Amino acid sequence: MIKSSLHELLPLNLSTGEPFYRQIYTRFRNAIADRLLKPGDRIPSARALAEELGVARGTIEAAYSLLSAEGYVETRGQAGTIVTLGLKPGLHAGPAQQEAAAPTARPRTAAAPVLHLPTPQPLPFQMGLPALDAFPRKLWSRLAARTIRATAHSDMTYPPYAGVAALRNEIATYLQLSRGVACTPEQVFVTSGYRETLQLITGALFKGGDKVWTEDPGYLPTANALAQAGVTPVPVPVDGEGIRVELGVQAAPRARAAIVTPAHQSPLCVSLSLQRRFALLDWAARANAWIVEDDYDGEYRYVGRPLPALQSLDRDGRVLYAGTFSKVLFPGIRLAYLVVPVSQIERFAAVSQTMFSGSPALTQSIVADFIADGHFARHVQRMRKLYGERRKIAAEGLDSLLGKYLRVDPQPGGMHLILRMRGRRSDKPLADAMRKDGMYAHTLSQRTVRHQTQPGLLLGFTNIDSAATMENLAQRMLKLVSS
Amino acid sequence: MIKSSLHELLPLNLSTGEPFYRQIYTRFRNAIADRLLKPGDRIPSARALAEELGVARGTIEAAYSLLSAEGYVETRGQAGTIVTLGLKPGLHAGPAQQEAAAPTARPRTAAAPVLHLPTPQPLPFQMGLPALDAFPRKLWSRLAARTIRATAHSDMTYPPYAGVAALRNEIATYLQLSRGVACTPEQVFVTSGYRETLQLITGALFKGGDKVWTEDPGYLPTANALAQAGVTPVPVPVDGEGIRVELGVQAAPRARAAIVTPAHQSPLCVSLSLQRRFALLDWAARANAWIVEDDYDGEYRYVGRPLPALQSLDRDGRVLYAGTFSKVLFPGIRLAYLVVPVSQIERFAAVSQTMFSGSPALTQSIVADFIADGHFARHVQRMRKLYGERRKIAAEGLDSLLGKYLRVDPQPGGMHLILRMRGRRSDKPLADAMRKDGMYAHTLSQRTVRHQTQPGLLLGFTNIDSAATMENLAQRMLKLVSS
Repeated sequence: MIKSSLHELLPLNLSTGEPFYRQIYTRFRNAIADRLLKPGDRIPSARALAEELGVARGTIEAAYSLLSAEGYVETRGQAGTIVTLGLKPGLHAGPAQQEAAAPTARPRTAAAPVLHLPTPQPLPFQMGLPALDAFPRKLWSRLAARTIRATAHSDMTYPPYAGVAALRNEIATYLQLSRGVACTPEQVFVTSGYRETLQLITGALFKGGDKVWTEDPGYLPTANALAQAGVTPVPVPVDGEGIRVELGVQAAPRARAAIVTPAHQSPLCVSLSLQRRFALLDWAARANAWIVEDDYDGEYRYVGRPLPALQSLDRDGRVLYAGTFSKVLFPGIRLAYLVVPVSQIERFAAVSQTMFSGSPALTQSIVADFIADGHFARHVQRMRKLYGERRKIAAEGLDSLLGKYLRVDPQPGGMHLILRMRGRRSDKPLADAMRKDGMYAHTLSQRTVRHQTQPGLLLGFTNIDSAATMENLAQRMLKLVSS
Repeated sequence: MIKSSLHELLPLNLSTGEPFYRQIYTRFRNAIADRLLKPGDRIPSARALAEELGVARGTIEAAYSLLSAEGYVETRGQAGTIVTLGLKPGLHAGPAQQEAAAPTARPRTAAAPVLHLPTPQPLPFQMGLPALDAFPRKLWSRLAARTIRATAHSDMTYPPYAGVAALRNEIATYLQLSRGVACTPEQVFVTSGYRETLQLITGALFKGGDKVWTEDPGYLPTANALAQAGVTPVPVPVDGEGIRVELGVQAAPRARAAIVTPAHQSPLCVSLSLQRRFALLDWAARANAWIVEDDYDGEYRYVGRPLPALQSLDRDGRVLYAGTFSKVLFPGIRLAYLVVPVSQIERFAAVSQTMFSGSPALTQSIVADFIADGHFARHVQRMRKLYGERRKIAAEGLDSLLGKYLRVDPQPGGMHLILRMRGRRSDKPLADAMRKDGMYAHTLSQRTVRHQTQPGLLLGFTNIDSAATMENLAQRMLKLVSS
């Protein structure tokens, strides 16, 4: 089914003026109208299809959002897309061109089905998602309802740009106690996520043409966001001790900043060694550069104790500490934060009020109460334990069935496992096969910009809820790897 | 009290390395500890104090956020700041320097009072705020609670960058019916507010050094956001028919875009005449430029029918239509949207996923339901009627007591009145006096960048709930204007 739909899509017509996203949209729409794709069928991830067709991912996303808005498919955010369940064939089977010529608003009914579909689950092995099944949703709903009932006029006006005072206080207290981050509430800037955090940093500290170290392999959205802002990312290799500071100094000694993930390097999960931490701080002092510490999942360490944040070693106010609630609560809450050095409060206050609209007082207040009432600390504790168990289940399940082909690379922390391919195998074919089979599979080679790395698969384990689930998935993988 | 505290603050010490925001913070803190400022005392607005001291507004905001985070004052977003009610003198009266040297997290108790204060009301005459007292909060709470109970795993993962499909559909339908904006849901990009909308446009369409027409007088945050992004705002004069296109062509014929408020020019409230609309579209076609239509309050017209959006006249896809829920629901919801031409969907989809984190699924779903259930249309209707009444009450109240000094300038729509000063008076002294007296007062001269305008006061009327309230306020103004 996937295959046929992909064939349907190839090749794109370069001659007609019709934009690619619209050609893709039309092909899918016809494939669905012609029942080539049936309700419930999974269509390829935007990333996979973009690779397949050699077009920008944004192109695919545009086509999918159009199909989704019209009710043909149901987008699951980062979790893939299926043809809308219970969709009647021929719905809006009119030619797409006509609409392009004279766009009109879709009648509400067109997209209504999207709202009333059963709950989609995250994809197997999806990365960067906390255990959604283990989130205390009843408790959360009670808290949220209470917050909403208590909505005051003050919550209805413009929220403070830097965040609601109560939340900034809770964050400062939490960071001090749990991550050794010394900060006062006024150093804390609330954002809607890591991307906005990067926008804030870029707007306040970088200018076009600046160079910034990024980790290689690393988290590609960081480099993309910098490039979008006219800043040049300089990929610096990572080894077992984290970013190789000396190679960064060789490549760009006067870089304006380094963006690093010291707790569990993304994606290699290694911790930045103490020696490297000092080397990095020394370089920053010499080069008058900034260090951005992306501590996206520092809480999740299963061997030994979590390392204190790099920021806690900072003596001359060069480290900006970026945290998020996406991994410890859930991404849909859209709340993250940045801790800036005292010397930079003014600048960041000015920039945030120029660039940003702020986050809703509602979500900020819910989270502030969740922390203040002690639920947050308990939840982090419970998740650390749970992820330790699920990590073990996943590692054992993969090893017992796939040990012949793959080796599980043990890591002290993080939310995903690294599977090394035995022999000279590349990681791509298996990953492609898994994606086509409806699993989520990232490869180390995908996350590498300039420097070679050992091939490997990155598999999120946080939503693997039982050994049975794992065995079932390992069986599916076995078919793919041995075929 | 204000005066004395201002004197406390002057002059700032330029010699010590101590940053201004911290000097201001310390002075306030001491003034509060010494009971020079007592609980409930209003401290100057950041804007007023910044003018007073000749420092950046961000500097004052930083000092205030520090005072607020420590529980000394209670910030009311854009509605001003008071010394925390029920504050015990001497609380944290320790020297501020010490903290700067060795920052530590404030104990939770320090900021707790901020959470448990009585509901602050918007300032009299505050601009850009809908009638908070008339918002159907019970209904809203019910809807919100329902949405939260229905939270699915899909709502907990990353929301689509461009917005939740259901909301994009509702917006497209609403715009089509109420504003004559022809668009399909995939042209709609949900943002967290007008500032984020501007970021999105800038990221997708502008580059450093580009020139962009802005209205003069106009909405200054627009120019500031452009400047922050390295784009040069070109202030173009406004007259009774709106922006003077021919002068824009003289000043910057090859500008990349024009950002305009056609429905009710901000702040003059005039509508862009049909002739000017065509002139603007012609220029855009010739110059291959974009037009950004900021339709922030197009719904609120009291004389005749609302004009269809400029976008509805656009034949060659040059108009980007920016709307917001801040004026028709309430600002705290932090939701706005941008409608882009079909040809630009791809680019905006790519840029939004690179730059933005998206808005919470929760607030998006609540608003989508609010619209889908018909509450939104009813609310807009009711507010249009209510604002018409409050506008009349305000105009009559001002005229009867202050007619000798001021003339109310009748406008067909908008959310504020313009008071013209009789004789050769400047608008500044009265505005300053009103601010010090705890009222919100913007002046036309404040909103002017390069070109002369008649002086005038801008007074929001949406929260003036009765003739009695108005008379009371007019009496206060009379004392100030006649003294």
